[in-house]
Amino acid sequence: MRPSERAPDVLRVVTLETGVNRYAEGSCLISFGHTKVLVTATVEENVPGWMRNKGAGWVTAEYGMLPRATHTRGRREAALGKQSGRTQEIQRLIGRSLRAVVDLKALGERQISLDCDVLQADGGTRTAAITGAWVALRIAVNYLLEEGVLKTDPIVGQVAAVSCGVFKDTPVLDLDYEEDSQAEADSNFVLTNVGDIVEIQATGEKRGFTRGEFEQLFALAEKGIGELFVKQLEAVSAAKPR
Amino acid sequence: MRPSERAPDVLRVVTLETGVNRYAEGSCLISFGHTKVLVTATVEENVPGWMRNKGAGWVTAEYGMLPRATHTRGRREAALGKQSGRTQEIQRLIGRSLRAVVDLKALGERQISLDCDVLQADGGTRTAAITGAWVALRIAVNYLLEEGVLKTDPIVGQVAAVSCGVFKDTPVLDLDYEEDSQAEADSNFVLTNVGDIVEIQATGEKRGFTRGEFEQLFALAEKGIGELFVKQLEAVSAAKPR
Amino acid sequence: MRPSERAPDVLRVVTLETGVNRYAEGSCLISFGHTKVLVTATVEENVPGWMRNKGAGWVTAEYGMLPRATHTRGRREAALGKQSGRTQEIQRLIGRSLRAVVDLKALGERQISLDCDVLQADGGTRTAAITGAWVALRIAVNYLLEEGVLKTDPIVGQVAAVSCGVFKDTPVLDLDYEEDSQAEADSNFVLTNVGDIVEIQATGEKRGFTRGEFEQLFALAEKGIGELFVKQLEAVSAAKPR
Amino acid sequence: MRPSERAPDVLRVVTLETGVNRYAEGSCLISFGHTKVLVTATVEENVPGWMRNKGAGWVTAEYGMLPRATHTRGRREAALGKQSGRTQEIQRLIGRSLRAVVDLKALGERQISLDCDVLQADGGTRTAAITGAWVALRIAVNYLLEEGVLKTDPIVGQVAAVSCGVFKDTPVLDLDYEEDSQAEADSNFVLTNVGDIVEIQATGEKRGFTRGEFEQLFALAEKGIGELFVKQLEAVSAAKPR
Amino acid sequence: MRPSERAPDVLRVVTLETGVNRYAEGSCLISFGHTKVLVTATVEENVPGWMRNKGAGWVTAEYGMLPRATHTRGRREAALGKQSGRTQEIQRLIGRSLRAVVDLKALGERQISLDCDVLQADGGTRTAAITGAWVALRIAVNYLLEEGVLKTDPIVGQVAAVSCGVFKDTPVLDLDYEEDSQAEADSNFVLTNVGDIVEIQATGEKRGFTRGEFEQLFALAEKGIGELFVKQLEAVSAAKPR
Amino acid sequence: MRPSERAPDVLRVVTLETGVNRYAEGSCLISFGHTKVLVTATVEENVPGWMRNKGAGWVTAEYGMLPRATHTRGRREAALGKQSGRTQEIQRLIGRSLRAVVDLKALGERQISLDCDVLQADGGTRTAAITGAWVALRIAVNYLLEEGVLKTDPIVGQVAAVSCGVFKDTPVLDLDYEEDSQAEADSNFVLTNVGDIVEIQATGEKRGFTRGEFEQLFALAEKGIGELFVKQLEAVSAAKPR
Repeated sequence: MRPSERAPDVLRVVTLETGVNRYAEGSCLISFGHTKVLVTATVEENVPGWMRNKGAGWVTAEYGMLPRATHTRGRREAALGKQSGRTQEIQRLIGRSLRAVVDLKALGERQISLDCDVLQADGGTRTAAITGAWVALRIAVNYLLEEGVLKTDPIVGQVAAVSCGVFKDTPVLDLDYEEDSQAEADSNFVLTNVGDIVEIQATGEKRGFTRGEFEQLFALAEKGIGELFVKQLEAVSAAKPR
Repeated sequence: MRPSERAPDVLRVVTLETGVNRYAEGSCLISFGHTKVLVTATVEENVPGWMRNKGAGWVTAEYGMLPRATHTRGRREAALGKQSGRTQEIQRLIGRSLRAVVDLKALGERQISLDCDVLQADGGTRTAAITGAWVALRIAVNYLLEEGVLKTDPIVGQVAAVSCGVFKDTPVLDLDYEEDSQAEADSNFVLTNVGDIVEIQATGEKRGFTRGEFEQLFALAEKGIGELFVKQLEAVSAAKPR
Repeated sequence: MRPSERAPDVLRVVTLETGVNRYAEGSCLISFGHTKVLVTATVEENVPGWMRNKGAGWVTAEYGMLPRATHTRGRREAALGKQSGRTQEIQRLIGRSLRAVVDLKALGERQISLDCDVLQADGGTRTAAITGAWVALRIAVNYLLEEGVLKTDPIVGQVAAVSCGVFKDTPVLDLDYEEDSQAEADSNFVLTNVGDIVEIQATGEKRGFTRGEFEQLFALAEKGIGELFVKQLEAVSAAKPR
Repeated sequence: MRPSERAPDVLRVVTLETGVNRYAEGSCLISFGHTKVLVTATVEENVPGWMRNKGAGWVTAEYGMLPRATHTRGRREAALGKQSGRTQEIQRLIGRSLRAVVDLKALGERQISLDCDVLQADGGTRTAAITGAWVALRIAVNYLLEEGVLKTDPIVGQVAAVSCGVFKDTPVLDLDYEEDSQAEADSNFVLTNVGDIVEIQATGEKRGFTRGEFEQLFALAEKGIGELFVKQLEAVSAAKPR
Repeated sequence: MRPSERAPDVLRVVTLETGVNRYAEGSCLISFGHTKVLVTATVEENVPGWMRNKGAGWVTAEYGMLPRATHTRGRREAALGKQSGRTQEIQRLIGRSLRAVVDLKALGERQISLDCDVLQADGGTRTAAITGAWVALRIAVNYLLEEGVLKTDPIVGQVAAVSCGVFKDTPVLDLDYEEDSQAEADSNFVLTNVGDIVEIQATGEKRGFTRGEFEQLFALAEKGIGELFVKQLEAVSAAKPR
Repeated sequence: MRPSERAPDVLRVVTLETGVNRYAEGSCLISFGHTKVLVTATVEENVPGWMRNKGAGWVTAEYGMLPRATHTRGRREAALGKQSGRTQEIQRLIGRSLRAVVDLKALGERQISLDCDVLQADGGTRTAAITGAWVALRIAVNYLLEEGVLKTDPIVGQVAAVSCGVFKDTPVLDLDYEEDSQAEADSNFVLTNVGDIVEIQATGEKRGFTRGEFEQLFALAEKGIGELFVKQLEAVSAAKPR
């Protein structure tokens, strides 16, 4: 039934390649099928003005899409002179999601910026970005621990995300673009490895959806995110020291 | 337990005053306790460029907050030269929510713009805006029906919204600012009068929250929104012809 | 002769409602007929960079108009990304007018911002804003005096404003929109309660106007502003303590 | 008493040099003492979108100041990314003033843009700009008449402007920067050659000013502008054909 | 002598990988050592407004750098709200260079946009972008020829570019970042495969340089670009049909 | 052969008038035929943030063009809200060129800003700006030396610039607009008085050009710039003390 012939509860092929940027303290190229997001984690020894002298750090994210990441070329936001509402919404979501598993006091007065740039988009870019950003962040923090910059680990858990939707009246896991553009409902789940909810965004695109459908989407997300947690740990284990 | 001494499942005093703008085709001043949002519905006999010649209309929303709507003065977005990510996120949500109950083909090639301006903010401005915007929209469409501009009603249902959150480990309905600023989790539910979900946004602010807590938030939202549907209909019934 | 059937020297119904914002140190909703402007006065314990360490304070104003304040919807300045020349011209005028009756040294190193937001416009919004802003400012300063933040009163007089114009060759007081859009000449007078001129702006819209006509406009303004001074004092007297 | 040792009713040396730009349909370099403004009039055979198909033309103005036109270097507006409120206020004034003496229907569907760029500023730049702009406009329209593009003259009168102020309690004509920065009151008068008022802007800078003082400023302006009308005509007469 | 131990006339390892974007009509990931630039060629069946109805097409380029492409994180231009002067200068150069080998009339009324995004920067990003852009363009045009959209080949030659500089008083080919930051002089050469000059930019960074040094830089560039032409053709030959 | 009937190696009439701005520490109005650029040098006793506490100064440039400097009116960059890529490219070039002959340490922690505003453009505005900017800079530095602000001269040489191009297959010196718009190749040379190259920019506009042609352009530039150095010194000698 699905254009990709996947069963409703099957993720696309997910790969996580680390060490893809020689300057960043952490980096990761994550693919969900044809969706490819390059994430770098940058550590800076200062915090934004409004955070200063609070004895705590900050984790933030920026999101961008190359103009031809999509079927038709989009206009470059730098040339337009502003980030779209969609871009800002996504980068706020990524930042919140990562902060949910970081003890900002333990991080100390430093900032980690997660730059998530979509090289190719086929649906699910924001959830791929969150999932990859955790890996880049984890590697950057490991580096700070190894260097002795940090004494205790400020990362208190794992976070990953996936999209689910109602496609032709069937709840399915990990929508690709073709499904997403026709889905009746679309949702993004961000969960932690202890099963807590970090963020749920669910929208009826073509029609409202029922509470029963929502329950099914939630169950699919829990299954998919469980698999992503394993992949995240594998990628971090395999990462070479900087 | 709540600073306002409300029981966990009790809304603030909600009032809806219609006819508050003499030019707009529909208007509504909605209050949720100290939160006050002025909504106008403007009908224009054309649609944005990308919608033209599709035989369908469009419903959109814009959101703003007066600089001193809040405890401390915020900077005016017009003076800053751009709308914040938060503003854009909210106005996109309002627009999507209203479009969920409008048959855009039945609306014809015209646009209805819902301007939601927060005169005073005490938490829950986006959900108040959605709830009030439906009333302004309903009145504007009634006017088009009365004038014979529209032959059939493009509004296919009622939509309303409320926030819920986990405050001191207790799920509560309709957070005010004091609760919101301390809540462990915050959520916004947008539902239709046939019980469908239009949008759910749930965020762990201080900690992740459990699926059990989420279920309780959902139930509170269903109760609160049920009450809002009644108030919406009362306000529309009482509205004087333009 | 006037569309409103007022005599040439008669103001519209003017009302001033105070205490309309629970957070602002001073606030006022002023109506001139259908024109409604919401003014808040915000006290901040610092001054703009260029004023620092001069032992003096600052009074400034910002002006905005809700998109549907007018007959047809205007574009939201925050969405356009800039304030129009008209907006900037008006807010500069309001700021100058209020500073004319404030001893900035006596105010101390603090700033009072007057936000003037037009909820509904039917001509004369800038003069209504000035007149209402004085009331909001007076209440905010009274609060600072009551709290002991200020020992001496920095307000040295009253200021109010009104528009006059030549409509169908007759000088008239307090133009509404219908008159304004057809007037041959339009003027705004800002005067103090000791009869001094703070600002005069007079423009021939359809034709130049004569010095004789100008004299008549001036006399009308003096009459109207005299009545506004009384209303301002009544509103301040009736204001409840914060 | 005046720093320049002029009598209160004496203009600075005013010169008007035409033909200073080889491309513009009309051009003029006007000096009021050390204030120098370069004005060009550009004729374009189309009107702004909102003026189209109304059988009428448009006259508009833009104003700018070179960064080092003043004692200390100001920031370049093009680099800042926006025109200041002051700039916009001035260019709106110049445009209105010139339109007051142009029959826009007789101009036909074309636009004349008056670019007024201040090369050196010593007070009175906006009034110099208006006075010089009339000359540039007159020359450009003469060119259109000579070329047969226009059959009838759309210019219905002469317009010129001057500033006056109260300096050390004495009303004086044509303030230079040193006077302007210390003046108690400042005003700009724009008058036509039949004695009509096009625009009056009068502001109490240091204190309010009295109606008596205002009358004296008005009389000074009438004297000064009378002299400017003569100089404008001399400059136009002396202008060589393009 | 060179930090990389290369001889003065030796390029870094250059690789060109095609088919790296599944949507773009042509694409190429070019590496010059650690410098990596992703180029996509997008064909659109229309031209910019100012080119319309001239019977000719257009080739343009945009350039961007991911924030952490460099040693320290740069600010995202989309977030800053504008492209830097450097970015604009580079993208103008890329566009001019490619247009030098395209017969725009033969291209027909369509536009090809070359997006050059730097994933990692180690000097020479603009010359890598030009060299890679020719490959992406060649593949996109081959596709149009295969599809029969174009009947004749609008590409009239090959273009490639390289940087050279004077490093420790020795002219060297293909500066990496470490050399570039210390070079006395820096130059970019853009040449065609028939030996014509498309563009030369040469700048004395630390000191002026002599005509003799310039001649040596030119010779190095001719050698290096000759090698790049071979690599371009190899990459195009190896490209799989889309 | 040339529209101006000049021989291929002949400059237009070049004039340099100093002391054209009464406030600037140095100023110069330079004409190359009909091209006229007004340059002011402003000394400020501080440096940009990123230069602070390095014991060195900075020389920078800004470039602008009056809207009607050209045959058809261009849009004002301040009104557009941004400087074009061309403007930024030019002002970066001017700044680099001047810094090439200034010892920034000897300048001390102060900044000199060169504002180059094109009053009338007939080709070669950037090279005229560089040539005139050196004169304005020289005069400003002489003033600092005379005042004792500087003890040693930070200017280590002379810099000037000229454009050359291939026009109808003949290399010619100092293109005017008519030539420039038809030239096959266009180049700008910036040289010092000891014969060093500061900057070369050469572009094939209509076709690539050969190395032989380039050599001829270079020789023409050397001849022309030699003449400009003489004119610069004459202008500085003739400048009156401020």
